[in-house]
Amino acid sequence: MITSSSNAKVKQVIQWQNKAKERRAAGVFLTEGSKMFEEAPVSSIIEVYVAQSALEKITEQAKRRDKLLQTGYEVVTDALFAKMSDTQTPQGILCVIKRPEYTLDGLLEQEKPLLVVLENLQDPGNLGTILRTGEGAGVTGVIMSRQTVDIFNPKTIRATMGSVFRVPFVYVDDLGETIQRLHAANIHTYAAHLAGERYYDSFSFREGTAFLIGNEGNGLTKETADLAMDYLKIPMEGRVESLNAAIATSLLMYEAHRQRHSF
Amino acid sequence: MITSSSNAKVKQVIQWQNKAKERRAAGVFLTEGSKMFEEAPVSSIIEVYVAQSALEKITEQAKRRDKLLQTGYEVVTDALFAKMSDTQTPQGILCVIKRPEYTLDGLLEQEKPLLVVLENLQDPGNLGTILRTGEGAGVTGVIMSRQTVDIFNPKTIRATMGSVFRVPFVYVDDLGETIQRLHAANIHTYAAHLAGERYYDSFSFREGTAFLIGNEGNGLTKETADLAMDYLKIPMEGRVESLNAAIATSLLMYEAHRQRHSF
Repeated sequence: MITSSSNAKVKQVIQWQNKAKERRAAGVFLTEGSKMFEEAPVSSIIEVYVAQSALEKITEQAKRRDKLLQTGYEVVTDALFAKMSDTQTPQGILCVIKRPEYTLDGLLEQEKPLLVVLENLQDPGNLGTILRTGEGAGVTGVIMSRQTVDIFNPKTIRATMGSVFRVPFVYVDDLGETIQRLHAANIHTYAAHLAGERYYDSFSFREGTAFLIGNEGNGLTKETADLAMDYLKIPMEGRVESLNAAIATSLLMYEAHRQRHSF
Repeated sequence: MITSSSNAKVKQVIQWQNKAKERRAAGVFLTEGSKMFEEAPVSSIIEVYVAQSALEKITEQAKRRDKLLQTGYEVVTDALFAKMSDTQTPQGILCVIKRPEYTLDGLLEQEKPLLVVLENLQDPGNLGTILRTGEGAGVTGVIMSRQTVDIFNPKTIRATMGSVFRVPFVYVDDLGETIQRLHAANIHTYAAHLAGERYYDSFSFREGTAFLIGNEGNGLTKETADLAMDYLKIPMEGRVESLNAAIATSLLMYEAHRQRHSF
């Protein structure tokens, strides 16, 4: 059991917890809680830390116990665990996970891709929710501009409920160039845009499709919106001017799912 | 200009900001920011406070200036305003608003109501987002169990983006009894439930409809789910077990909108 806060591994985890840059340089991210431990592929789990008082509860379930035996783990005192944790009420298990690495080429190779392209999304909860809902809707990949919030932000990770392990994603430096590549790969791009004249459910999303989604406050930049092949709009009653970014994206993704699964 | 923190009005606002119970007793809630001031009906605005340094910016827009002249307002020093504000970066305008009062009878009197029934929803952001999306989808009312998060929570208010002023809502003490009343009023109730065997888009929501939505962690209680006339499910690919409550509700509300607006 680790009892000292001068332990090198513990110091490393605390540093990773506090510094996104260090996490990135090491090619890792951190997850907390049983759910995320259960969802993480064994091959991606680098280290597991369990708080002393949580050990019994965590190992009492056979499936979790077996997985812990496969991955190995360190027990740490509750006081140390609280320092390592990002949450106010730590759930007693923390994992260091190897970052998955996807490429844009990989995302484009799939048959009839269903992609979400996020430009400068800022809210970690929105991003996590889009990944979770995206997996549910059968999205084949998420492409993000470099200025989009960090997908390995602890809040984002939590909101994905495990989808971060399964939905392929890439950050790209040049969103315009990327959209050109989508077009070259026969993927139709749609901008969710107030200037849209046709409702989203009047388009067909059965072939290769990418939805371009803008920042929460400002929507898509003009440069990006100009590149989209079509504008679409979501009907809004009352005095509503826009929907939350995760909600709008979810409606589009599930409309694509509806079309792709009905005959 | 108010400069003293011993001013009775300022003390009252600070008390309301911190104590939900006091807000309730006084029949008021607080909003911050220009957007909420613009959205609030003049007849509901009891008091307006503007931070000294924000006055110029807030009054430079003609529409806002005219509204301020109608409602009247107090200027307060920036230091005082920071104490009155709930946010870390105050936006310089704070309103005391009279709570709207709706009745269940009122919600049931409408023609072919489209209702959302929330049982013990806990996340203020989710509730606010459901109101905002609900207005967009043409929802005619939101019914909440008494244990649902306070709709006048500042986070909820912010997330509604003004819809809190326009979507009718009620809290009810006995959700079971309320559902019986919906049935008596010819409103068909649907539970979003894992036990659902039919997909949500295979039902017709063109007549009176109510969606029963459960708590984020636990879903609907068995007692409430048992009362629903139908269970419905949302398709989920991959390993997704459930969707975020606001996302699931939004998909249902917009499916109802799609059906009610296509011929």
